[in-house]
Amino acid sequence: MEASTRTRRRRADAERSIAAIVDAAVAAFSRRPDTSMSEIAIAAGVGRVTLYAHFPSREALIEAATQRILAEASASLDAADLERGPAIDALGRLIHTSWSVLAHHGGIVNAEGALAPSTLRHHHGDVLARMDRLIARGQAEGVFRTDLPRDWLVDVCYSLFHAAARAVGEGRLDPAATPDLLEATIRATLERTSRS
Amino acid sequence: MEASTRTRRRRADAERSIAAIVDAAVAAFSRRPDTSMSEIAIAAGVGRVTLYAHFPSREALIEAATQRILAEASASLDAADLERGPAIDALGRLIHTSWSVLAHHGGIVNAEGALAPSTLRHHHGDVLARMDRLIARGQAEGVFRTDLPRDWLVDVCYSLFHAAARAVGEGRLDPAATPDLLEATIRATLERTSRS
Repeated sequence: MEASTRTRRRRADAERSIAAIVDAAVAAFSRRPDTSMSEIAIAAGVGRVTLYAHFPSREALIEAATQRILAEASASLDAADLERGPAIDALGRLIHTSWSVLAHHGGIVNAEGALAPSTLRHHHGDVLARMDRLIARGQAEGVFRTDLPRDWLVDVCYSLFHAAARAVGEGRLDPAATPDLLEATIRATLERTSRS
Repeated sequence: MEASTRTRRRRADAERSIAAIVDAAVAAFSRRPDTSMSEIAIAAGVGRVTLYAHFPSREALIEAATQRILAEASASLDAADLERGPAIDALGRLIHTSWSVLAHHGGIVNAEGALAPSTLRHHHGDVLARMDRLIARGQAEGVFRTDLPRDWLVDVCYSLFHAAARAVGEGRLDPAATPDLLEATIRATLERTSRS
């Protein structure tokens, strides 16, 4: 076998291992944020040496799982077609779609505590950019307030989502009631009222 | 010297060391969340052995600094007399008072990333209870909305404060404008409008 063929095979093996590990990590952290590295190695069908070769720390693995879930969120938001119809309706679709991805992976939000807030925010870049465009559209349509910085309104939505996910995780909120609660809260912060 | 006297002196020495360490930690983390344990030992005028004897980990020290700052917040909120006057005015005092404590200790919010969200929330118990009582009073006065669970409204205020502190820390918000911005945002989520 040629050296280049061997290299290619080795790379393909590594890619399969990485994919299996990230799959296992997404599933495991979504159920139980405190899953150990050994449990994930077993679930992925790889040895600890292979696991640590690709993900030198638990944080690195949580980060990869978070990126995978956010890619899933972006794909769902593409399907929700946020450019269509009135901004207020698109906001409802954005909230319900994002929440369903988040709810499906419940526990990851608590595992994410292991990541620096700035790292976590960085990986949310695409989702935050969609939120920003939607708020700008609602402002242009005259339904969202324009007296507060748009960056801040995006921050508010981001932190309300994570607050809701934590409250569900800690048993303070009923998960079934949460999407509507989140929509009511986010609408209250965004909508222009007689006050603004 | 009697054994009991020696024990008492040793305890008094330990208490002085702990107080000096927590003072130094509050000052250091407030300025720079990534301050190392060695830097704090030097600032407190104690050796590393003494530091680690009282605070076995950086997390333990961040937790003690956080508790100290929250005790300061509680004392300031006592002075702000939240039971006085209309709830909406008391809300303004609560926001401006809490923010001034938080702003004074800026960097600690980023250091707090080292604590589990549930630990951090636990230490905010007194502040959250004050917020809860104030929201209940505003609901009784007919100015705050009653269609969302009060626990959730408290969570919303808590996460908006921390979102604002992080946005200031990461340079996305102007610190001088933040208390008014926070008040406008929190009022939007709490106030009863034509919608609710």
